[in-house]
Amino acid sequence: MRNDGPPPGQADRTTRSDDFSARIAHDFLVRLRERQPRVHAITNAVAKNFTANMLLAAGAVPSMTIVADEVADFTRHADALLVNLGTLDTERRAAIPLAIAAAQDAAVPWLLDPVFVERSPRRLAVAQQLLSRKPNVLRTNATEFAALTRRPADRKSAMAFARESGCVVALTGATDIVTDGRRTIAIANGHGLMARITAMGCAATAVVAACVAVGDDALLATASGLALVGIAGEMAGEKAGGPGTFPPLLLDALHALDEPTIAARLRCE
Amino acid sequence: MRNDGPPPGQADRTTRSDDFSARIAHDFLVRLRERQPRVHAITNAVAKNFTANMLLAAGAVPSMTIVADEVADFTRHADALLVNLGTLDTERRAAIPLAIAAAQDAAVPWLLDPVFVERSPRRLAVAQQLLSRKPNVLRTNATEFAALTRRPADRKSAMAFARESGCVVALTGATDIVTDGRRTIAIANGHGLMARITAMGCAATAVVAACVAVGDDALLATASGLALVGIAGEMAGEKAGGPGTFPPLLLDALHALDEPTIAARLRCE
Amino acid sequence: MRNDGPPPGQADRTTRSDDFSARIAHDFLVRLRERQPRVHAITNAVAKNFTANMLLAAGAVPSMTIVADEVADFTRHADALLVNLGTLDTERRAAIPLAIAAAQDAAVPWLLDPVFVERSPRRLAVAQQLLSRKPNVLRTNATEFAALTRRPADRKSAMAFARESGCVVALTGATDIVTDGRRTIAIANGHGLMARITAMGCAATAVVAACVAVGDDALLATASGLALVGIAGEMAGEKAGGPGTFPPLLLDALHALDEPTIAARLRCE
Repeated sequence: MRNDGPPPGQADRTTRSDDFSARIAHDFLVRLRERQPRVHAITNAVAKNFTANMLLAAGAVPSMTIVADEVADFTRHADALLVNLGTLDTERRAAIPLAIAAAQDAAVPWLLDPVFVERSPRRLAVAQQLLSRKPNVLRTNATEFAALTRRPADRKSAMAFARESGCVVALTGATDIVTDGRRTIAIANGHGLMARITAMGCAATAVVAACVAVGDDALLATASGLALVGIAGEMAGEKAGGPGTFPPLLLDALHALDEPTIAARLRCE
Repeated sequence: MRNDGPPPGQADRTTRSDDFSARIAHDFLVRLRERQPRVHAITNAVAKNFTANMLLAAGAVPSMTIVADEVADFTRHADALLVNLGTLDTERRAAIPLAIAAAQDAAVPWLLDPVFVERSPRRLAVAQQLLSRKPNVLRTNATEFAALTRRPADRKSAMAFARESGCVVALTGATDIVTDGRRTIAIANGHGLMARITAMGCAATAVVAACVAVGDDALLATASGLALVGIAGEMAGEKAGGPGTFPPLLLDALHALDEPTIAARLRCE
Repeated sequence: MRNDGPPPGQADRTTRSDDFSARIAHDFLVRLRERQPRVHAITNAVAKNFTANMLLAAGAVPSMTIVADEVADFTRHADALLVNLGTLDTERRAAIPLAIAAAQDAAVPWLLDPVFVERSPRRLAVAQQLLSRKPNVLRTNATEFAALTRRPADRKSAMAFARESGCVVALTGATDIVTDGRRTIAIANGHGLMARITAMGCAATAVVAACVAVGDDALLATASGLALVGIAGEMAGEKAGGPGTFPPLLLDALHALDEPTIAARLRCE
């Protein structure tokens, strides 16, 4: 990891190696396994099963109800809330503000994953309205980021948007950019098959939510979550025969991940 | 299997080895494969796919609609009905009384799986109301049992609750307790990874529902279903690299299960 | 492949080998991978995840929203629309006419998969009403075909129904019959385990939808989609330990499929 940010004295800088490292990512993993945080995931129907299994493989405990008279109870007793906008059916859409209110009331951190906002003006409007509720973390891919912020999907825009919105921005792709507007971490782990699996990004955001649940620094938690999933993805990609055997192997790898493996594989700057 | 119940002459006793055995569990499996019972499963979104595949691997035929104007038709022509309360969305909640009425009207047995009732007062109230409709089998884990019955989650309470409620109680955990209030069977099969897979319990209850569909004795059917899934889980656990490769291997094992394997592996008392 | 149709000069004939072949099926596969068509799949909750992964493994891009104010936007920008009637909940049922209207407005082809219509009079009525909207392709199994058309599920009835309804009919089973009323292709690929996996037929129809999206001849597209899935299923069946390891291996095989394999394995007439 090298420091390629602006010179000292400026607000914008890339996190140095002593700020993010394999040790930090491993610390988050240890805390996941010890504390078994509850993550309430309001997520799309396609992603539910894989997301729950990813959370379990990481050490967390998932819950997923979207019913108006249950969602606040589940959220209030959770350690993090994930709001994913994929296949945004009416009942789920109605549950989201209730869950966010409960989360903010109980000081539970929450994350926004605005899936496919570029495809539907209505969903884009929902996402923009939710952003004003100040999620702790926003996770998007490049297309979603551009649609949501009307800016190019690059590091500079991500930092500017993080500063203005007050949330950690994770702009994921071949290299993931994680920034709080001041510090930036770039993670280059992952595998090409991750783009050929449905709900991979949704499930990765859920693991990020679990990390946010067990640490105070949302930037480091987000980077750790993405690093853990990216490394597990690489290990699965080396063994998998294709996109079908890949997800089971990724879950196995995430469940078995240890410090030497993280140290040997983490690629960040 | 040993008889550790009270002396003869008392109502409460543990089923003796001649009451439950590998032969009985295998008989249920043979009947599943021959009769291919239809199981209508009103279950949560996270569990649907895995539950359907578990039923198919066991020899049964799943259906899963929750729509008000369809659910009675599907239930009436089913051989068992499963009601699972996970992620209890509005439409599914509305379908449940319709399905139960259709089941009772057509003498179709039904099972209740009150997932996560300890997390939401509203869901607890729904579960208690459904219990008054007298399911043939109640399947809970320890936390759910304690929340639902306000009793400690032990064998004695399970027996007392079974007697009072008139249903077979399956209290699952490292050892599964199955009781009708008079007889009790304890099954010690299973594997630690089963607790790291989402919807494992939901899917196991579905296999129990399939067994109840093909036999008159709900106690033996329930014990058989849990034994078959537990044994398949053990076999999968011996081969799996972790929680990702575990569910596919469990389905393979359940599909291939035979009498010698059941006889060699069943651990019950 | 042999021509066992009626003599030349009659309208009804079986497609000859120069009409359908491994080369054609492979051409469709190449186009899927090059063009990455968007398939909007309005499908049942059980099938969503597997369907999305099948589409991705075939080279297509899935979307699945069912919300009234989003579904037209997604459909209009899709390259094909799939309407599957399994577990037909209220919101999904309301979305279907909106999606079909958007598809027809934007000249997007659409396919109907009337799952389990034989089990519910209400669902049968919905399916019959949708048939009058003239889908490009109707995919059914034998029981569904008989319930929907009140005819025996054979080649002759399929041809007659295709002629009258103006859609390509795919009547799937051990041998798949694909007909536009004039030409008929029979595909004998596949594996017995495909009937022991939930949503296998639903996901196969989605791959057919992707093929229809990239070719003008819906008959050849439908035959190609079924052939590709059937061949992938055969390859998976040779390796799988049972119904659990089968779906991941099928996805791997579909993703890796190439021309020599298709040429060596295609069984059609």
